[in-house]
Amino acid sequence: MSGEFDVIQRYFSQTKGQLSNNPYVKLGVADDCAIFQTTAGKQIATSKDLLIEGRHFFSDVDPYALGHKALAVNLSDLAAMGAKPIACLLGLALPSVDEKWLSAFSSGFYALADKYHCPLIGGDTTRSEHGITLSVTVFGEVQPPYLMRNQAQIGDIVWVSGVLGAAHTALELLFLEKQGVTLSAEQGILLEQTRAALEYPEPRLALGQSLVGIAHAALDISDGFLQDFGHIVKQSQVSAIIEEYRLPVHAALESLSWASKRTAVLTGGDVYELCFTAPAQRSAEVLALSQQLGIPLTAVGHIVAPQASQFEVDVIDADGKSVVFPRGGFDHFATE
Amino acid sequence: MSGEFDVIQRYFSQTKGQLSNNPYVKLGVADDCAIFQTTAGKQIATSKDLLIEGRHFFSDVDPYALGHKALAVNLSDLAAMGAKPIACLLGLALPSVDEKWLSAFSSGFYALADKYHCPLIGGDTTRSEHGITLSVTVFGEVQPPYLMRNQAQIGDIVWVSGVLGAAHTALELLFLEKQGVTLSAEQGILLEQTRAALEYPEPRLALGQSLVGIAHAALDISDGFLQDFGHIVKQSQVSAIIEEYRLPVHAALESLSWASKRTAVLTGGDVYELCFTAPAQRSAEVLALSQQLGIPLTAVGHIVAPQASQFEVDVIDADGKSVVFPRGGFDHFATE
Repeated sequence: MSGEFDVIQRYFSQTKGQLSNNPYVKLGVADDCAIFQTTAGKQIATSKDLLIEGRHFFSDVDPYALGHKALAVNLSDLAAMGAKPIACLLGLALPSVDEKWLSAFSSGFYALADKYHCPLIGGDTTRSEHGITLSVTVFGEVQPPYLMRNQAQIGDIVWVSGVLGAAHTALELLFLEKQGVTLSAEQGILLEQTRAALEYPEPRLALGQSLVGIAHAALDISDGFLQDFGHIVKQSQVSAIIEEYRLPVHAALESLSWASKRTAVLTGGDVYELCFTAPAQRSAEVLALSQQLGIPLTAVGHIVAPQASQFEVDVIDADGKSVVFPRGGFDHFATE
Repeated sequence: MSGEFDVIQRYFSQTKGQLSNNPYVKLGVADDCAIFQTTAGKQIATSKDLLIEGRHFFSDVDPYALGHKALAVNLSDLAAMGAKPIACLLGLALPSVDEKWLSAFSSGFYALADKYHCPLIGGDTTRSEHGITLSVTVFGEVQPPYLMRNQAQIGDIVWVSGVLGAAHTALELLFLEKQGVTLSAEQGILLEQTRAALEYPEPRLALGQSLVGIAHAALDISDGFLQDFGHIVKQSQVSAIIEEYRLPVHAALESLSWASKRTAVLTGGDVYELCFTAPAQRSAEVLALSQQLGIPLTAVGHIVAPQASQFEVDVIDADGKSVVFPRGGFDHFATE
């Protein structure tokens, strides 16, 4: 038997037992395709993200955390559509077969798959010539109305879930370490406090499902709040005012300068929180949802009419003055 | 706007117009997820394959051909389950944005997607640190009985579609060229005659759908006939006798030694033909299907009872003698 199939069988076949009572999955790993079904009348939401070593994760990242994150970033896309997870596929290109790595990676992946009832039902494993590439595809169940990006309405309140800035801060500190800089004691503590946000993002699935029928527009802000919220504004053909002092900042960032906080919160990427817009008269329901789910939900601005067909986000400070930013968020093709 | 979104919009948004009359696709590229539905009562077959530069394709491969092949190898998995294509996702990791390459690649991809009514509805584009990685996910519609691997029955005839050996031969000649060898005139002609099999495989979708209800077991033989047919035998817990002289050999290989032909036909990979087993009394229907679809379908052996719980493929020559092979097919983790 070839190495490829050994790998698959040893580390990625543990779902088999779990599928016997699964109402969706008809056929898991072991054939040319996996087969699943939806509840009658429902539709399938699907998304796929590629994660490339050296671009989306460090080579020495904890493989358990990487397994978690590879699935989490895809589940976050389901959350942003209000979808309920059905199943997932994993494509894995590895430069070599490292059993310790595979064991930890698959454990992290399966732990999150189990938590959100999203069994791994198929995929592909191959050798890469350079570095690790991960490709996850997720499937979820939806029905109209969907949580789309192009449905924001003038007068809507803009909301964001969770607290922001931690993932960006952890990433900056890890980059410093990679460059050989010895972190100060304070920086070391800051890294400890922010690292989980970067390595163990939690997909906001319950929130997304609860927002269907309440929110007009939603997305996840994985490329940074400002860049991703810009998609809602442009696709909905509206403008928006964001009050930056309302943005929820991770507690660990308290001691940082406002300029650092601002960069981390407004443009920092790797954030798997939801941004959504909802009518002002639904605000009490949104706040009740925050209580019920135990997730901070913060009103950070509102949708306004566009001027001269320009669909823009105006970020204002506490004095009502517009703030100008040099950067627009995480560009997957940036060369910096 | 960032480079990533420019790329997506310019080369991978042309499906938009085609989706207006599509009965399956509710939401294409432009949101966190794509959304599709099936015909009432049907189920979803899904598969994903990774293609890595330097491993699954040469760096200088014609990008139009690569676009075709990236989708074809995935559609071949749908064919092997008897599924009807619904839609696909594309993950694309590129070391740089080369517009000429993207234009040709997307044209090849869309040409095949249009041919088989399998619109591109979403995906992910990112920069890679090393080389090109392609990850395609396909969705198709099925209902039981599926064409599975584990349903071969004792007494079944073993069939293979198309003619074999050409892709392997083209690959060997291209490897010679990469090593700096100047091909002889005969080798040059042989490469011309076999190259299309390697670069433009045709997924056997109509055949797969037609075999539902006739064939017991089926798969595609992308890793080579012997290795992949071995999965049918092992998963069905049977054995098989393959008469090697019955195997359909590509006409261009006529002048090669039998040893070369044998390697190409029995173990050569990159073959997107179907291998299936069907009861002997259905052979007339299989042959009628061959006529109707214009695809060679050849009986190459039969399924027999296993001896002592060993599930084995016995390849015999014209004298009835067993043939021994040093290699088992394409191992995705082989280091040669």
